[in-house]
Amino acid sequence: MSPAPKNLIVAQSGGPSPVINNSLRGLVEASRDFGGIGTIYGGWHGIEGVLKEELLDLSSQSPDEIARLRITPAAGSIGTCRYKLRDHQNEDFDRILDVFKAHNVGYFCYIGGNDSMDTANKVAQMAHERGIDLVAVGVPKTIDNDVGDSEFKLIDHTPGYGSVARYWSHMVQFANEENAGSSPADPVLVLQAMGRRIGFIPAAARLADPERKLPLQIYLAEREISIEQIHDQVNDQLRRDGRAIVVVSEGLKIGDLGERKDSFGHTQFSSSEITVAQKLVNELNRRGLAVKGSARCNVPGTDQRHNMIYASTVDLEEAYKVGQKAARLAAEGESGFMATILRNDVPEYGVHYDKVPLPEVANSEREFLESWITDDGMDVTDEFVRYAAPLVGEDWVSIPMNRGRVRLAQLQPLFADQLLAKYTPQADRE
Amino acid sequence: MSPAPKNLIVAQSGGPSPVINNSLRGLVEASRDFGGIGTIYGGWHGIEGVLKEELLDLSSQSPDEIARLRITPAAGSIGTCRYKLRDHQNEDFDRILDVFKAHNVGYFCYIGGNDSMDTANKVAQMAHERGIDLVAVGVPKTIDNDVGDSEFKLIDHTPGYGSVARYWSHMVQFANEENAGSSPADPVLVLQAMGRRIGFIPAAARLADPERKLPLQIYLAEREISIEQIHDQVNDQLRRDGRAIVVVSEGLKIGDLGERKDSFGHTQFSSSEITVAQKLVNELNRRGLAVKGSARCNVPGTDQRHNMIYASTVDLEEAYKVGQKAARLAAEGESGFMATILRNDVPEYGVHYDKVPLPEVANSEREFLESWITDDGMDVTDEFVRYAAPLVGEDWVSIPMNRGRVRLAQLQPLFADQLLAKYTPQADRE
Repeated sequence: MSPAPKNLIVAQSGGPSPVINNSLRGLVEASRDFGGIGTIYGGWHGIEGVLKEELLDLSSQSPDEIARLRITPAAGSIGTCRYKLRDHQNEDFDRILDVFKAHNVGYFCYIGGNDSMDTANKVAQMAHERGIDLVAVGVPKTIDNDVGDSEFKLIDHTPGYGSVARYWSHMVQFANEENAGSSPADPVLVLQAMGRRIGFIPAAARLADPERKLPLQIYLAEREISIEQIHDQVNDQLRRDGRAIVVVSEGLKIGDLGERKDSFGHTQFSSSEITVAQKLVNELNRRGLAVKGSARCNVPGTDQRHNMIYASTVDLEEAYKVGQKAARLAAEGESGFMATILRNDVPEYGVHYDKVPLPEVANSEREFLESWITDDGMDVTDEFVRYAAPLVGEDWVSIPMNRGRVRLAQLQPLFADQLLAKYTPQADRE
Repeated sequence: MSPAPKNLIVAQSGGPSPVINNSLRGLVEASRDFGGIGTIYGGWHGIEGVLKEELLDLSSQSPDEIARLRITPAAGSIGTCRYKLRDHQNEDFDRILDVFKAHNVGYFCYIGGNDSMDTANKVAQMAHERGIDLVAVGVPKTIDNDVGDSEFKLIDHTPGYGSVARYWSHMVQFANEENAGSSPADPVLVLQAMGRRIGFIPAAARLADPERKLPLQIYLAEREISIEQIHDQVNDQLRRDGRAIVVVSEGLKIGDLGERKDSFGHTQFSSSEITVAQKLVNELNRRGLAVKGSARCNVPGTDQRHNMIYASTVDLEEAYKVGQKAARLAAEGESGFMATILRNDVPEYGVHYDKVPLPEVANSEREFLESWITDDGMDVTDEFVRYAAPLVGEDWVSIPMNRGRVRLAQLQPLFADQLLAKYTPQADRE
């Protein structure tokens, strides 16, 4: 009698995206079809769920609900985490291996960004060093598009980015109607985009207006600028157009924000004491505008990454297929790789799916190209628009409704029996 | 030879809504069909445009673009204003009459809330006192739903509210996916809703969860509460559910926000030095949460009223028809009325259109029913849900796309010739 097929754990880490569940769906649906893979478990809130032996049985969920993950944004179905596996925390590593062993796990797939690829890589290396039979595969996801290299050879773009880019493209078009209409009272509308250090998200605001007809200014965290300069540039715009739409990166450095840090050491701008948009609005109103009325700001925050209505159909498709690709890599025993999306080298937009070694993505970090920022520091170039425009898609995603509410996936709380002693992750101890 | 038919000026005032342009469209399309009405002008940025003799010719616009106002949110097409006509500012009143006379205007339709109905009423009264032949009609619009009376006899609800209610219903469902997914790092998500003094908008968050399964708390400005109480109630929720979604009204009184005022004397919360959501998040993080992680906040601001994707199909239809009704009132010479929406007195949701005297709406103000707030002050009742649920509709509005961008109405800048001397509105003088 052949041994039981090894089970698979899939888990998510970092901030979610509108399409992260579609990678999960691609991975689960493809894995179901591979005879070599047993039960598919979701780590409940990422690696934290593995450490706590909280494993959601995805194989036993209704296929209809799994299918509905397509139109379910963010990570509410199996959760995500910001737990960092630190090199010296050997108890955590031992625990992970104990959980894998107890549940006959031979496959570990981690969906996330650079830090998550680092976690996947550490788990793969640890298993290899200890001679344990484990296939670890990474699945890329980040709205920031900062996984990989600035030559776009490791990955062209990450699933999640196309949808957030579309969010900003459409949001600025709608906000322009607001600003044009309300400008006698509110001539300046400041919109704060996500992206701590990297400008892909605010840059996507330019997709709303590739011909540069709107009074739109875009400030990325990459380019140093003072409040005085922004104030001057906004007032110049007001003198020309009577109004201005200003998109700022949440990480724009124009003063202390009272930041809080997450466990990766990253700044959590949504939890800071003040936002950069608020700071800018306060200074613009204090210093005075060149026309009557006030500046105001919107800080959509996590809406950018949990809003399904703006999901890019291109992004949805690619998120699904890269999940499928990861399942195939796992089934074929290709441990230590991340599934990736590469753009075809032809004029018409298209992509293919491949693999890249986890250590390369875990330790690389993409930068927004300096050449994509205009000289005046308040716009991005046509070259960036050509890169990003195909990612937002053409169609609206169709979201089912039920009595006025959206009908999202509802997974059942079917957890694997806990076979081990209770464990508190090392970082969570007092 | 009969005299030329009198021309019509339609203008907008106050904050816009996703469907305000649909009332404009209803009014313009219906007025075109009445032989007694000549050219239809849009006052450019409300009464300010009338004072400045900036009259956009709507009769000469492409009917396709007028039709496209249906799916064009906010007030970018003809603009809105927050200009208050004060009783003693006789020059402004004289100027308005001069403009009407110069452009053969016999009809004045004003779209807006209480303050706008006050303006329409003043113009109607002034014309009547001076024996001038003018038909003044009001068209209701406000996302706040605070026009009219608390018995819902003057108007059942205002166009604009249904769409904002839907925004909150869907937004909270999506935000719940985010909060459920990210709760190990961000267990508390605070969302700030519009509505300075009145709770209809934050209350609509309950439509996301009428069965009260989510860890959702809703705080309206009507109910006095301290930060200490909210902190306690949030921590109670965290102990029960591990996470919490907190919806706060922008006007919740929990401390000084450094508010700015508009020319009506209203607080402009979007231009304040800090938001109530930020203040609450700072205090929650400072005082400490009952679980690990931080509180964070989203302040969507004007997105609530310029986002077309969430538009309620019910609201769209009603906004159009109340605009039609106003055109009919104008054509029939019914001066001094506001077109209104009244709910049919049968179990199935339906409405009819009627008229109410402008002085009654100009001087009344609706309050959120005390009986609709739960005793613990952090929720609204089933009775409110029954009132609001039919307004959000079932279908998604279909928005045309063109190369990845939304295709909104684009009116041509066809302005009536200026026949009078240049005029600076009284409130705009140094």
